[in-house]
Amino acid sequence: MSRTKSVRDYIRTIVDFPHEGIMFRDVTTLFADPRGFRIAIDQMLHPYAGERIDKVVGLEARGFILGGAIAHQLSVGFVPIRKKGKLPGTTISQDYKLEYGEAIVEIHDDAIQPGEKVLLVDDLLATGGTAAAGIKLIERLGGEIVSCAFIIDLPELGGRNVLENMGMDVHALCEFEGL
Amino acid sequence: MSRTKSVRDYIRTIVDFPHEGIMFRDVTTLFADPRGFRIAIDQMLHPYAGERIDKVVGLEARGFILGGAIAHQLSVGFVPIRKKGKLPGTTISQDYKLEYGEAIVEIHDDAIQPGEKVLLVDDLLATGGTAAAGIKLIERLGGEIVSCAFIIDLPELGGRNVLENMGMDVHALCEFEGL
Repeated sequence: MSRTKSVRDYIRTIVDFPHEGIMFRDVTTLFADPRGFRIAIDQMLHPYAGERIDKVVGLEARGFILGGAIAHQLSVGFVPIRKKGKLPGTTISQDYKLEYGEAIVEIHDDAIQPGEKVLLVDDLLATGGTAAAGIKLIERLGGEIVSCAFIIDLPELGGRNVLENMGMDVHALCEFEGL
Repeated sequence: MSRTKSVRDYIRTIVDFPHEGIMFRDVTTLFADPRGFRIAIDQMLHPYAGERIDKVVGLEARGFILGGAIAHQLSVGFVPIRKKGKLPGTTISQDYKLEYGEAIVEIHDDAIQPGEKVLLVDDLLATGGTAAAGIKLIERLGGEIVSCAFIIDLPELGGRNVLENMGMDVHALCEFEGL
């Protein structure tokens, strides 16, 4: 029996990365495949056909690969959200909790104009911490978030609930069980 | 008098970033503009119309934004070259010199098949150190590099000569004088 591979089938699992006990869902095998990358980007955009989107915001670093492709397909601008200290211009910043300690992400303070319709993209929705910080940055600049688009949702980590409780529309192409 | 803005016109200069004396050429203002991002990606591809390209390789992190867009436009796979420790699978690594000390970049050892035609992309060609390390990684996997494509060349830093002396074809959309 043969069937056409889905986006999920192109994703590789690496055991014990970045530390023991983690099942790391590796999208690089999806991105490296010509059909895999094509259908992933196309399918991420299907929910938004006919929607107004002015800017695509991608989360460092894998969200840059997806966000660049999606912004180009839509012929709209791309805006990066980066880890602290990486953006050269004037920024606003937002901290968020990690498993151990905290992290800070930043956006250029002139990157989004009030009222612009924004699509936020990243490869993976886990606890939702980074995405939630990104949402706050976009909203502090007056951006209106159309939706948050991911390749993978890890439902056991509850990130979808975190974002939906912030009023977000959330789409993911596939789910994986197990951390 | 008005004229159509070129790619170069969308690029912002930030003085003294990341440290004093550096004129940082900031492409985020290019990427954030719908027309700027569109024409930058399209123009980066013009030299390769009709050429066979099997994979696009992008250098972390701004090369991911460009590489994702270009790979999607070509319907080919995208492969990241990342700083040490970021890629989850089995990698090969290459060190290179920085102004102070050295750095290491990595690629997944199964990301490129022998004989594949590769386009290497990044936003900025300065000394060429990172790009040269990336070229070595691709060639060690048996990839054949069609060309190296950049938005900006800083001719005073000599990166083009470094890459051309490695036998590379090099394209950049614009040049800036001054570091």
